[in-house]
Amino acid sequence: MRTVITGSGSFIPANIKKNNSFIGQLFYDENRQLIEHSAADIISKFQQITGIIERRYADTGMNASCMAVEAAKRAIADAGINAESIDQLIVAHNFGDVLSNSIQPDTVPSIASRVKHRLGILNSSCVAYDLLFGCPGWLQGLIQADAYTRAGMAKTCLVIGTEALSRVTDPYDRDSMIYSDGAGAVITQISNDDNGIIGSRSASFAADDIAFISMGQSNYTNGNATTNYLKMQGRKVYEFALRQVPLAIKGCLDDCGIHLSEVKKIFIHQANEKMDEAIVNRLFKLYHITDVPQDIMPMNIQTLGNSSVATIPTLYNMVSKGLLHNHALRRDDIIVFASVGAGMNINAVCYRV
Amino acid sequence: MRTVITGSGSFIPANIKKNNSFIGQLFYDENRQLIEHSAADIISKFQQITGIIERRYADTGMNASCMAVEAAKRAIADAGINAESIDQLIVAHNFGDVLSNSIQPDTVPSIASRVKHRLGILNSSCVAYDLLFGCPGWLQGLIQADAYTRAGMAKTCLVIGTEALSRVTDPYDRDSMIYSDGAGAVITQISNDDNGIIGSRSASFAADDIAFISMGQSNYTNGNATTNYLKMQGRKVYEFALRQVPLAIKGCLDDCGIHLSEVKKIFIHQANEKMDEAIVNRLFKLYHITDVPQDIMPMNIQTLGNSSVATIPTLYNMVSKGLLHNHALRRDDIIVFASVGAGMNINAVCYRV
Repeated sequence: MRTVITGSGSFIPANIKKNNSFIGQLFYDENRQLIEHSAADIISKFQQITGIIERRYADTGMNASCMAVEAAKRAIADAGINAESIDQLIVAHNFGDVLSNSIQPDTVPSIASRVKHRLGILNSSCVAYDLLFGCPGWLQGLIQADAYTRAGMAKTCLVIGTEALSRVTDPYDRDSMIYSDGAGAVITQISNDDNGIIGSRSASFAADDIAFISMGQSNYTNGNATTNYLKMQGRKVYEFALRQVPLAIKGCLDDCGIHLSEVKKIFIHQANEKMDEAIVNRLFKLYHITDVPQDIMPMNIQTLGNSSVATIPTLYNMVSKGLLHNHALRRDDIIVFASVGAGMNINAVCYRV
Repeated sequence: MRTVITGSGSFIPANIKKNNSFIGQLFYDENRQLIEHSAADIISKFQQITGIIERRYADTGMNASCMAVEAAKRAIADAGINAESIDQLIVAHNFGDVLSNSIQPDTVPSIASRVKHRLGILNSSCVAYDLLFGCPGWLQGLIQADAYTRAGMAKTCLVIGTEALSRVTDPYDRDSMIYSDGAGAVITQISNDDNGIIGSRSASFAADDIAFISMGQSNYTNGNATTNYLKMQGRKVYEFALRQVPLAIKGCLDDCGIHLSEVKKIFIHQANEKMDEAIVNRLFKLYHITDVPQDIMPMNIQTLGNSSVATIPTLYNMVSKGLLHNHALRRDDIIVFASVGAGMNINAVCYRV
């Protein structure tokens, strides 16, 4: 018995925010000093490192829960299930619904309850809750769905990742250009064959790591403001991810008795193109493999940016539907999902398509 | 094999806020009309219905995560375990850390990560995440811990409920007097005998019910404010809880093959004294039992108010340590935990001490 993904869907906001739209922005560093380079130079360097050319922002009237509903509808339709049969409705996010005219997150009732309401699910046995685990939240939701399935507590789960990071970013911080909005969702069911989740690994690093991604004041402030924004210590995050993510993936594969050479695709959290490439290179080095297969890592960060919990299900949805050039999945392919983010948290899932 | 609670702890803030401290407050109704009765009359009626005489507020410099750490330390010490052996560190809350000078919740990194950090736990396999499920969040965390234990994903879990409701309440709303701050925690481990969690029920009602507890503007406002506060439709919540909670408890007991007459204690979410009494009366009516045992329902709402996710673990901790007059637990006692709150969510756990 395995937990298998039987449907997927995503919601990508229509509003494209191109890099050149930041050209009039003044950027300040973490010491609140104006960065003297021109915005054009800053954006050019940003694009080189992150690979991001454009990102998506949700409409003003749209929230994390609205995007989640759209992604969920598509996943439910794709799986061809009756929504009333869902046993666990899990929504991963980190900020809930943030009104566009405020930076106050709204999580009461939970985003999962809002999604269930708008999906019109009346079955009260469909348990709806929110999960906060940084960017790896959606993948952790998948791992939790697997636990309920294996414990006999659920047969069908809806696992959603949704985030409107554009609502919590400091425009004076270069990192704001990384962030994007979106939602992705999957339906999981019980499989009676070998297809589905083979194994998983999760890890939380909460020593000094805890400060690498956190809330903090604007880079353009007198230090007395009461509003906080999403802040990253980019170099620290990069070094942490490079060290820990390959180990987590290898640990997961080892647990499953699978060698990296058997893996067809690695779906990695779309955090930063250069970082993700470095992680995969380091992973192959752990196996003493010098030639990384060119098509191992599908990426969509170039046009979709980093939408936190939404990146992996969105990427999986695109690849499984043949919507990402040069990438496809075939039955029995072994694939890996892996993520890293605030906490700092890391997880990896080994999966047979 | 069962999941058993091997330790408990709670943190009750030292600051006592008595009913008469609200005597100078003007109260407005949900239509933003001044309530003409004197504050003394309003408070007197409030006390009759809710049973609340006083509540606790966290220190200005203290947050939900700080209270969680204190409760967790006590639960860990009570269980006599090494904190490094914890596999899942689950923190239920609904608002995260709300700074006392702001109403902006802060949940990045997660409250669980902050707790893990301050407990000094270095084992990265201790997975730390936050769970949002309204007031029944802590009990849902216990149910999730049971799932991980039964799925072979965890042997030891730390399940915390923490909330500083005083930070999100509208002072012009009479309901603000209900809310309190606090944290409670338990350690769960695998039991090789019949003691521990026998069964559970969870339910999410997200039709019209979704609006019964939500965020909304102050009762004293022109309707254009961007700040939202915790709001309840008291009558709707009361009717919902009275209808659904007894059914959930009976469903849970039926699943476990246990009759209500075997149950020694019911630990119910401390929402409102009269409501809780009515729920238990209705439950006994379902079994056609007219005499409700006097000592079946321990209560501490009179002096601790409603601290959301923290009420049940705090109450359990007090009773199991003999700190609540006339209440005690003996080995092999069958007890029930039950909760209701925003979502609207309900859950019940049947447990052998």
